[in-house]
Formats: sequence, C-alpha cells, structure tokens
Amino acid sequence: MAPSEAGAKVQPGVLLARGVCRMVAAHGLAGLTEMPLANGRRADVMAVDRTGEISIVEVKSSIEDFRADHKWPDYREFCDRLFFAVPETFPVELIPEDCGLILADGFGAEIVRPAPEHRLAAARRKAVTLRFAHLAALRLQRLVDPAITAEAAW
Amino acid sequence: MAPSEAGAKVQPGVLLARGVCRMVAAHGLAGLTEMPLANGRRADVMAVDRTGEISIVEVKSSIEDFRADHKWPDYREFCDRLFFAVPETFPVELIPEDCGLILADGFGAEIVRPAPEHRLAAARRKAVTLRFAHLAALRLQRLVDPAITAEAAW
Repeated sequence: MAPSEAGAKVQPGVLLARGVCRMVAAHGLAGLTEMPLANGRRADVMAVDRTGEISIVEVKSSIEDFRADHKWPDYREFCDRLFFAVPETFPVELIPEDCGLILADGFGAEIVRPAPEHRLAAARRKAVTLRFAHLAALRLQRLVDPAITAEAAW
Repeated sequence: MAPSEAGAKVQPGVLLARGVCRMVAAHGLAGLTEMPLANGRRADVMAVDRTGEISIVEVKSSIEDFRADHKWPDYREFCDRLFFAVPETFPVELIPEDCGLILADGFGAEIVRPAPEHRLAAARRKAVTLRFAHLAALRLQRLVDPAITAEAAW
C-alpha cells in the first residue's frame, strides 16, 4: 500500500504524531505516543533524551483541535519542555509563545522554535521515566508475543 | 503455524526467554530481552517492577550453556535481584545458591527460589532505567514504523 493510501485511512493527528516520532528517533531520542500521565491526561508524544530530559509534544491538526483543548498547561507538570506540533497550514500565531513549535506532516517534522526549559523535580522525573519504561516495554512485548495481554499497570 | 512448529525453528534459549517474559508480564512487570549493559554484557531478560526494582534473568538452556558463561556475576552490578532460568531437565544444583531460580519453557515460567536483594545505588538505578526506557521505546517505534531505523543510542 502506498503511503498516501495508508494516510487516507488514519486521523490527521496520528499522521502528525508519526512524523514527530520520526524526528524524535532521528535525533536519538526515544519517543512514545499516547502516554498516560498521573493526572489522567494523555500526552500525544513523549520523548526522552539520553540524559533523561523529558519533552512532551502535543499534536494539533487544526484550529478546532487546538481550541478544544483547554487543559494543555497540565502537561507542563510532567516534562522539562513542552512543544506543540502543527501542520504547515496551521496559523502558528495561535501557539503560546512559552511553548516550543514543531511543524510536522506524516513523514517528518522540524523544530521551528525551541521550548523553554522548566526542570522537573527529581521524584517526578523518576516516576515519569519509570512509567515511560513500563509502557514502552509492555507495548513492545505485546507486539512481539501476542500471548502477552497484560495492560500497563497504571 | 502451530506453536510446536514455530518452536522448532528458534534457539532453546530464545524460547525460554519468551516463557520468562510471559511470566514477567503476568506479574505486571515490564520485561525486555537482550538488554545491553554499560559493562559490555547483555542481559537475557531485564524486568522492572512498578516501584522501579530491577531484576535480571539469565537464561541457560543446557549445562554447556551454563558452564560457558564465566561472567554472570557481572550482571549483579546492574540489578537488585539476579535469577537464572533453566528448563525442567536442568540439574538445578548447579545454580549458585545466592541467585534466584526460575523453571521455564517456551510458554511460561515459575519462580521456584526467590533471589536475594542487593539494592542498586540510586545513580546506577537511574542510568539502567533510562537505558531500559530508551531501548524499549526505540524497538517499539521500529516495529510500529519501519521508516524509523535509529539504533539504541548506547
């Protein structure tokens, strides 16, 4: 199946998240989509670098999508840097200035404005990293061995 | 393909590791096979529990396999608990008493002797957890999106 055919069948946000994950991987960071947070929210993409720094990327495929989300400041408590990823057609002036900005499509992404750092406390970083490790390993195990049906513990 | 046909094509150690990973998942821990350690060794299975406790399971499919490995004490530096997993036919008296013992086959496993705890220092635990998180997420990303070809950073 050609990429365009595959793309026609999925949500725009899912495609943008794929582009973000490719960029994240190309930079040597580990990325994970749909990462549940302890406050009940779910980060579209979480990325962890080699030093343990944690970024969250919220993907907004349209103005409506962006405006429907009033709780995005909640993500800040769970990362060192917060980005929005939007398509090139998105009016980027809507994105808050104190967040990083990523332009994305289904095949890749580019950081056009870095995100200011707000360092996590050590205990929070430890908890988020452990949850990330668990979720990634459990998802991997379920793909590798369909007999494994365990859900993430949290 | 029936499980027995699939089993005939893989190494015995790989099958035992699969059984160990099923047990690990059933207990709500996150497992990862072939986990590289900072000392150049590679753990057959690493498991992380909800509190961040790290276990390593070394899989030995035969006496020869066990005797060929003189460096297993090196694994202890990278975990809180060290286990050996062997098939039921293995003479378990060969397994050192200060290690846990798991009986495994390709479909599951059971802890028959718990492993004594030797707590990791905080910095080492942090480094191992971060490496585990990275490797699990990168492997998952590569399975989900074949366009991602990044190797684990370490």
